Amino acid sequence: MDIPNLTINPDRLWADFEQLAHIGATPEGGVHRLALSNADLQARTWFAGQVDAAGLTLCDDAAGNLSAILPSLNPNAKTLLIGSHLDSVPNGGCYDGSVGVLAALECLRVVQASGVALPVHLEAINFTDQEGCWQGLFGSKALTGKLSPLSLNGDPDQHDDNNQKAAFRAALQRAGIHPSDVQQARRQPASVAGYLELHIEQGARLDRHGAHIGIVTGIVGRSTYEITFLGEASHSGTTAPQDRRDALQAAAHFIQIAHTRFSRNAGAFNCGNLRVLPGAFNIIPAQAVLTVEVRHPDEAQLRGMEKRLLTLARKCAERYHLTCSTEQMVHMPAAPMSEQFQTWIASACQHLGISDSLPLISYAGHDAQMLSSFTPSGMIFIPSQHGISHNPKEYTEWADVVLGANVLLHTVLRVALSV
Amino acid sequence: MDIPNLTINPDRLWADFEQLAHIGATPEGGVHRLALSNADLQARTWFAGQVDAAGLTLCDDAAGNLSAILPSLNPNAKTLLIGSHLDSVPNGGCYDGSVGVLAALECLRVVQASGVALPVHLEAINFTDQEGCWQGLFGSKALTGKLSPLSLNGDPDQHDDNNQKAAFRAALQRAGIHPSDVQQARRQPASVAGYLELHIEQGARLDRHGAHIGIVTGIVGRSTYEITFLGEASHSGTTAPQDRRDALQAAAHFIQIAHTRFSRNAGAFNCGNLRVLPGAFNIIPAQAVLTVEVRHPDEAQLRGMEKRLLTLARKCAERYHLTCSTEQMVHMPAAPMSEQFQTWIASACQHLGISDSLPLISYAGHDAQMLSSFTPSGMIFIPSQHGISHNPKEYTEWADVVLGANVLLHTVLRVALSV
Repeated sequence: MDIPNLTINPDRLWADFEQLAHIGATPEGGVHRLALSNADLQARTWFAGQVDAAGLTLCDDAAGNLSAILPSLNPNAKTLLIGSHLDSVPNGGCYDGSVGVLAALECLRVVQASGVALPVHLEAINFTDQEGCWQGLFGSKALTGKLSPLSLNGDPDQHDDNNQKAAFRAALQRAGIHPSDVQQARRQPASVAGYLELHIEQGARLDRHGAHIGIVTGIVGRSTYEITFLGEASHSGTTAPQDRRDALQAAAHFIQIAHTRFSRNAGAFNCGNLRVLPGAFNIIPAQAVLTVEVRHPDEAQLRGMEKRLLTLARKCAERYHLTCSTEQMVHMPAAPMSEQFQTWIASACQHLGISDSLPLISYAGHDAQMLSSFTPSGMIFIPSQHGISHNPKEYTEWADVVLGANVLLHTVLRVALSV
Repeated sequence: MDIPNLTINPDRLWADFEQLAHIGATPEGGVHRLALSNADLQARTWFAGQVDAAGLTLCDDAAGNLSAILPSLNPNAKTLLIGSHLDSVPNGGCYDGSVGVLAALECLRVVQASGVALPVHLEAINFTDQEGCWQGLFGSKALTGKLSPLSLNGDPDQHDDNNQKAAFRAALQRAGIHPSDVQQARRQPASVAGYLELHIEQGARLDRHGAHIGIVTGIVGRSTYEITFLGEASHSGTTAPQDRRDALQAAAHFIQIAHTRFSRNAGAFNCGNLRVLPGAFNIIPAQAVLTVEVRHPDEAQLRGMEKRLLTLARKCAERYHLTCSTEQMVHMPAAPMSEQFQTWIASACQHLGISDSLPLISYAGHDAQMLSSFTPSGMIFIPSQHGISHNPKEYTEWADVVLGANVLLHTVLRVALSV
């Protein structure tokens, strides 16, 4: 079957974007729509209304993922998921997540109106708590069966800081999501044909190159550690340099070297926090605790970075006559996107006359990260002006949103018709 | 007049040391005798009892400095001050300060018993709050006229954190010291012949050299700063290295360079604390606040270090596209000891057969620091085992305490007889 020459309705998409941007709007021009907050619940209600108005099937699962479905004529067809998230970070922007959900809905409306019969169900899905107000990628974890039971019920051996888990359970229940049922949101991979997501880049590469479409090749894996250097408190005046066991000096050395060693090629390093004890002008620091993160798009390389990071910490400790301890907090594997899907996105671009699309690694996390090991997945990026995101100043030219939605639509058609 | 061949009474000094060590004693074998605490007031009462028992004149001034006086036959004589402090740091050792006050008292008892008539009044003085539980060197500042009125009354333009000043006033009043009168403790330089202090080294130089007496050449000056690097919070994954404005990276760079540049020759550098904002794994640090200290025994060199420190901070900020602000918290000038007094200490050592005395800079602060610009001053150090101080493990061989007390006695005689 030939690919039908459809196009999204920019005015309808704009009207949706405008209405959604008012829900949880902040004075600075962004949105504050934390997962399961009143604003998020209001956004879900609004989205459900749009789905109804479009004559699409509304569906929500046990983890609160909320979908519009355009069923195939074949009841046994697989489902092509197209989605993103309606929640935001605190005082975030209007584009992050929203654009992907609204464009997905628009794709379904266009296909529905065209009367084109596809051999897959199309599902425009809003995932619960992508941003991690409670637990990052909660909805996509539940759907792909990656939600650990402990993550909701609490590990009895672990202290529940500030009753965070109890508060999460209460927030779920308030939204009509039953904590004991969330595992039922799990789907079978065989039921799914793939996953597609349109998103703003949140970096400056497209903007800098004057390009309009990014074809995501993979999402970086991410590991975080708490690294503690342990020395000895002593008098800053009377302790001779050779007798010092200065935990902060080792930490500073570690940070310096780690930046030059790990923030290059495709890797990224951040030391986001550093706490010092005892912390007085005239006492040599006895303890320095660092919160450290490494990212890499290739899983093997990420594992290598982890090893070299810990070796570096040990060497820095030895150099200053300290001990050090390291604790891994998170390991999120690198998530390569489907090569076939990348080809289809490129083909959609070609069809639309876009000659300057860029293959890009995503350095931010997305629901596609959870989906990619579950079903073939693809992501389309559109530019973020000056790379600014998670900020009310987040901005994307409207023409780029429309272009991205059309690339999404034509990729959907190519994936759907290949099944 | 020939120098009389006197010697201190080791048993009497030991009995005093033992009794004092019981006041505010800690289970670890040290003392916890914070200025103006119950333990400190108890130590003062005990000291007053010893002064009375010895038939010396007891005297306290408006700042709570407590003294034993052995008057000269000449009522118009100058006073030779010999002292240290009875207060301790939290969970400190038994030697810091105590040894100096007890040896001073012992010197007065020996001279008194010998019947030698000196052309000066001898005064063994315990200074209030040397350690700075409330305000460091409070008693010696008051005596030398260096107490700023603001330091007690509070600057109306400055916030009084935790009502610290109100609590200090209350603590003074409880000890019978009237805050409005403390300036009356000020003495005239013309009334004083000099100041001598015996103290443990609190460093490891004497111990390392196997030497028993240190002749202090000067006390380091000290400047402290709060240095703030200001960058921009951004996403640790999506922000390209060239777009980062990482406040912590600049701080780490600054710490590394400052240690190599300022902790050498006679200088000392410490960065005792570092606070980061916002402080998350995945956010590039926007702000890093460092508490920084430099020390040098030469005032001109210290001023040079201050300038170079601020230049370095600015350069590190520029290198990472940040701004930085610096605030000086304290400038305590370098305090050279009297060369004449150093000569007399050396002569006392020679008289006592000590051939291995070492000229030493003091890297810790002492009351002699306040006195040195007010009257010729000298300090005698005895070894601290392994350099440990401000710690219950603080230890000095008893033979060294006795030796130090005899050096003090013979220095007192030399100074007194030269007036």
